[in-house]
Amino acid sequence: MKKNNNGKLRIIPLGGLEQIGMNITAFEYEDSIVVVDCGLSFPEDDMLGIDLVIPDVTYLKDNIDKVKGFVITHGHEDHIGALPYVLREVNVPIYATKLTIGLIDNKLKEHNLLRNTKRKVIKHGQSINLGCFRIEFIKTNHSIQDASALAIYSPAGIVIHTGDFKVDYTPVFGDAIDLQRFAEIGKKGVLALMCDSTNAERKGFTMSERTVGKTFDNIFSEHKNTRIIIATFASNVDRVQQIINSAYKYGRKVAVEGRSMVNVIGTAAELGYLQIPDKTLVDIDQIKNYPDDKVVLITTGSQGESMAALSRMAANIHKKVTIKPNDTIIFSSNPIPGNEKAVSRVINELSRKGADVIFQDAHVSGHACQEEIKLIYSLVKPKYAIPVHGEYRHLKAQAGIARDLGIPKENIFILSSGDVLELNEEEPAKVKEKVKTGAILVDGLGVGDVGNIVLRDRQHLAEDGIMIVVLTLEKHSSRLLAGPDIVSRGFVYVRESEDLMDEARIVVEDAIDICLDKHITDWGKIKNIIKDSLGDFLWKRTKRNPMILPIIMEA
Amino acid sequence: MKKNNNGKLRIIPLGGLEQIGMNITAFEYEDSIVVVDCGLSFPEDDMLGIDLVIPDVTYLKDNIDKVKGFVITHGHEDHIGALPYVLREVNVPIYATKLTIGLIDNKLKEHNLLRNTKRKVIKHGQSINLGCFRIEFIKTNHSIQDASALAIYSPAGIVIHTGDFKVDYTPVFGDAIDLQRFAEIGKKGVLALMCDSTNAERKGFTMSERTVGKTFDNIFSEHKNTRIIIATFASNVDRVQQIINSAYKYGRKVAVEGRSMVNVIGTAAELGYLQIPDKTLVDIDQIKNYPDDKVVLITTGSQGESMAALSRMAANIHKKVTIKPNDTIIFSSNPIPGNEKAVSRVINELSRKGADVIFQDAHVSGHACQEEIKLIYSLVKPKYAIPVHGEYRHLKAQAGIARDLGIPKENIFILSSGDVLELNEEEPAKVKEKVKTGAILVDGLGVGDVGNIVLRDRQHLAEDGIMIVVLTLEKHSSRLLAGPDIVSRGFVYVRESEDLMDEARIVVEDAIDICLDKHITDWGKIKNIIKDSLGDFLWKRTKRNPMILPIIMEA
Repeated sequence: MKKNNNGKLRIIPLGGLEQIGMNITAFEYEDSIVVVDCGLSFPEDDMLGIDLVIPDVTYLKDNIDKVKGFVITHGHEDHIGALPYVLREVNVPIYATKLTIGLIDNKLKEHNLLRNTKRKVIKHGQSINLGCFRIEFIKTNHSIQDASALAIYSPAGIVIHTGDFKVDYTPVFGDAIDLQRFAEIGKKGVLALMCDSTNAERKGFTMSERTVGKTFDNIFSEHKNTRIIIATFASNVDRVQQIINSAYKYGRKVAVEGRSMVNVIGTAAELGYLQIPDKTLVDIDQIKNYPDDKVVLITTGSQGESMAALSRMAANIHKKVTIKPNDTIIFSSNPIPGNEKAVSRVINELSRKGADVIFQDAHVSGHACQEEIKLIYSLVKPKYAIPVHGEYRHLKAQAGIARDLGIPKENIFILSSGDVLELNEEEPAKVKEKVKTGAILVDGLGVGDVGNIVLRDRQHLAEDGIMIVVLTLEKHSSRLLAGPDIVSRGFVYVRESEDLMDEARIVVEDAIDICLDKHITDWGKIKNIIKDSLGDFLWKRTKRNPMILPIIMEA
Repeated sequence: MKKNNNGKLRIIPLGGLEQIGMNITAFEYEDSIVVVDCGLSFPEDDMLGIDLVIPDVTYLKDNIDKVKGFVITHGHEDHIGALPYVLREVNVPIYATKLTIGLIDNKLKEHNLLRNTKRKVIKHGQSINLGCFRIEFIKTNHSIQDASALAIYSPAGIVIHTGDFKVDYTPVFGDAIDLQRFAEIGKKGVLALMCDSTNAERKGFTMSERTVGKTFDNIFSEHKNTRIIIATFASNVDRVQQIINSAYKYGRKVAVEGRSMVNVIGTAAELGYLQIPDKTLVDIDQIKNYPDDKVVLITTGSQGESMAALSRMAANIHKKVTIKPNDTIIFSSNPIPGNEKAVSRVINELSRKGADVIFQDAHVSGHACQEEIKLIYSLVKPKYAIPVHGEYRHLKAQAGIARDLGIPKENIFILSSGDVLELNEEEPAKVKEKVKTGAILVDGLGVGDVGNIVLRDRQHLAEDGIMIVVLTLEKHSSRLLAGPDIVSRGFVYVRESEDLMDEARIVVEDAIDICLDKHITDWGKIKNIIKDSLGDFLWKRTKRNPMILPIIMEA
C-alpha cells in the first residue's frame, strides 16, 4: 500500500476528534509513520454493558511496515489506555517521559506485554529520530506530571502538538511549561499547530494547581478534631502531594485507598515525582491505631463511580473504612459532565451518615482556557490551525480563537477522525481522503465482538424485556408436538399479570392455528406471524414493545 | 383505621423527600386529611424502560374517608404529574390557582378524567375550609406563574408550606411574593415552616427573571440577520413572554414547536397569563413564508431530551424545521444535573450543521437561595423547621441555615418519606411512626406491574444479553427428543463467534448427558445444572455473565 505523498505531510487522526478521549493521531511522510498517543474512551450511555472503547487501527495495520513508534504525550487513560490492545497488532516501540512510561509499564504488566514491548524514556528537551521524522519533547503542565508537547519535524515542515496542557507558572512539582522553546520553534516557522481544545469555551486563564494547596491548609486548620477523607483523581499526583504536605504540616498520617490510587502513588513515589516525608504514609489497616484527628485518608471515587472506594464507604460495603458522624469528607475535583448525579448520590449517602461533606470548588483544571490558547498561538504563529482534543463545540470554539488571532479561515481545519490532511509549505493544505476508523468496544475479554446489532438488542432488552415463545413441531408433518410455551424476562411481574400472559398464549395459539390451516411450513414465516400477532397484542394492551423471540424445535 | 391524634397535627410526607420530584404531603388532624401536591418524578438511570414514577398512596386509600382534597401549590410536573394516576383511587376535589388548574385540566383531559373530577380555582389571598383545616393561598414567585405558598391552619397550630418559590421583587408578570402576608401570619405565631430546599446550598439571592429579558434584547440586536431558535422549558411562561417581547421589538414573527410548548403557551394565553401582540404568532408551517431574519422559533428540547423538537432538528429528523448554517440557536436554561451530556450532544450536532449555538447562562433559577430562605424564616419565625423539596444534602443545608438563625436543633426535622411527625404547641414534636410509601413505576400503560425483579432482569439483560437453551424431553422417559438449541440476543455477534457458540452447545450437551446418566428427572435441577455449567464456561471464556434461560418442553 505504498502511497506517493508528493512531498506532503499527512496528518491522520484515528480518533479523539468529535469526542473527549481515544486520542490517537498518525503522522505520515512517505515511508514513515509516527503515532502520537493511543488512548481509550469510556462508553457512552447507550453502549450498554461495555467496559471501554478503543480506536480501530486498521490503517496502521495496513501500513505496519511504515510505523516507527508510538510517541505518548502523557500518562492519562485517554492517551495511553488503548496501548495494551493496539500493541497486540501494532507492536512498535513506545517513547515517552519517565512517569508516563512508568504508568504504561503498569498497564503492560497487567496484560503480560512488558517483555515483548520496547519502551524508551525521553527527557524534556530531548529529540528522537523516527524514520524521516524528528520528534522533540517540550515541557508542559497538566493535571498529571511529565506532560509533553511535541515538535514534529518533518521534511514538509514543523508541526507542534500540544497534547493536553495548561500554563502553570507556579507548578507544584518541577518546571513551568517551556514557553521559550515554543517561541524559539515558532521563530523558525511552524507549519501547523494542533492545540488542546477542551477548555476553549472558557474565558481567561486556568488557575495554578498550587492555589489548591492553600484551600487544603484552610480546610485542615478548620477541621482539627475530625478524621479527614479526601477523594480526588488517582492520576493527579500534584494534588496528592499537596494533601500530603498539609497532612504533614498538621501532624496527620496519610493512608491511601482505591486500586488506581495505590498504583499511581506507588509509581510516582518510586520514580521521584512524589515527596513523602518519613513515616507519614501508613497502611490502611493501621489507621485504626491512630486517633481520628491524626489521620487523612486519600481515596478514589471523586466521580461517584459505583465501585470506587469512597462509593463503597458511602454504601457501607467497604471492608476497611466505616464512615462516622463528624468525618470531614472533601471532594477535590469537579464532576465530569455526566457524573453529576452519581456524585450527588454519594454525597447524599455520606451526609445521611452524619459526615460533613465539603465540595472543594477549586476551579483548577488541567486544560488551557482561552487566554492560554491565545498565548500558545502567539508564540508558535503557525500557518495552519488544527484544533484537537474535544467535542465539536470545543474544536469550533478554538477555531474561533484562531480566526480572532488572524489565521485565515481556509487555514483552519476542524478535522473528523479518519480525515487525511495533506500539507506542506507550498500548496494549500487539503483533506485528501478518508481512511477507515471507528470505535471498537471492549466487553470483558471480548474486543470487537459486541457491535451495533448486539448493542441494539441490549437497548431493546433494557427497555421492555423479552418474551420467548417456544414450540416443537413434528418433522415432515409440522404437527405441533409441544408448546407453545411463553417465557418472559424483564417485561412484567408474571405473577401479577397472569391474565395478560394467558391471553398472550391464546394469541400465539391462534397464530399457530392459522399457519397450520394455511399449511404454512416455512419456519421463518411462522415465526414472523407469531411475532407480529403477539407484538400487536402486547402493544395494544401495554403500550410496550418487548423483544419477541419465537423458537421452533423439530422432533 | 381511626387514629387518636391527642390534639396533634400529623405531617406525613408520602414522597418528595430524599429526592427532587414526586412531592406529596398529607396533613392529618383527627378525621381530616388534606394533601398538598401530587407530583411525579422522572426515572433514575437504573430504572430501565420506565416512563415515570408516582407515589404509593396506600395511606390515603386506607384513610379515604378522611381525605378532603388536594391542594396544589403550582403547575409543574413534580407537583401535579401524578394526579391522573392517583385520582383513579383517591377521587377528591382539587384546589389551586387559575393557571395551575388550567394545566391540571390539560392532563385530566388526556386521561379522560375531566368529567369525574372536581376542580376549584382559588385566588391568592383566598382561603378554603377542608374538614377541620383552613388553607390560605399566598402569592409567591417561581419559574411558573401562579405559584402559591400555603398557610395551613389546624387546631394544633399554623403550618406554612412554601411550595417551590423564589423572591422576585420585579417579576415579569403579576405581583411579587406577598412578603407582608408571611410576616403577618408569622406575627400570629407559626408552629412549623416547610420551606423549599432546592437551592439551600447556594449563597446569596436568586436573580429576577426580568434580568433574562435584557440578555434576549442583546442577543436579538447582535443577530439581526439570522433566524433565531430558542429552546427553553415549556412551563416557563415568563421566559416565553420575554422572548415574545424581544421578537415584537425587533419585528420578528414567533412560531412555537414541541407538544408541551404548544400546550402550555395555548393554556397560558387563553387564561391571560401571556400577552401576545396581534399577528405576532404564526403557525410553524408558515415560517417558510418569512425571511429568516423575521422569524423566531421557540421550541422544547433545552435539556437535550432525545424526542424533543430541538433534538429532532439537530438529528435532521424534524419534519418541519431544517437547521441552516448561520441559524442562531439559544439554549435558555441550564442543564438539570444528569442532562449535561445529552445537551452537549445536541450542541455538537447543531454546531456541526454550522449553527451558532449560544448558551444563555442567565443564573436565574426558580428556587430561593440562602438569603431568600433566611428572609422567609425571619418573617415567619416558626417554632419548628421542616426542610422540604430536595435531596438529603439540600435538606441538610437548609437545616444548617435554620440552626444559624437560632432554631434549636431538636426543633429541626429532616424527615424521610413515610415519617409521621406529630406536633402541637404544647409537647415536643416527634416522629411517631412510619406509614407505607414507595415509588410506583409507570411503563407504558402499566402502573406498578414493573418492580424490582423486572428491573433487575432488565439491568442484567442490558449488561450482557441473554442466552436461551431449549430442549424437548419425552414425557415419562425424559428422553431428549429435540435440542438443545441455543439462541442468544445481546451477547455476541453470533456469526463472528461461531466457535464459542459451538463449544457452548457441547457444554450444554455434556450437562444434559450428566443429568440423563444420573437419572435426574427434576426439571428444576436439570435447568440449574445447565445454567451453572454454561455460566461457568462463558465467564471463563469471555468474563461476561449473560442471563441464561433454560426452557424444557415436554412432548
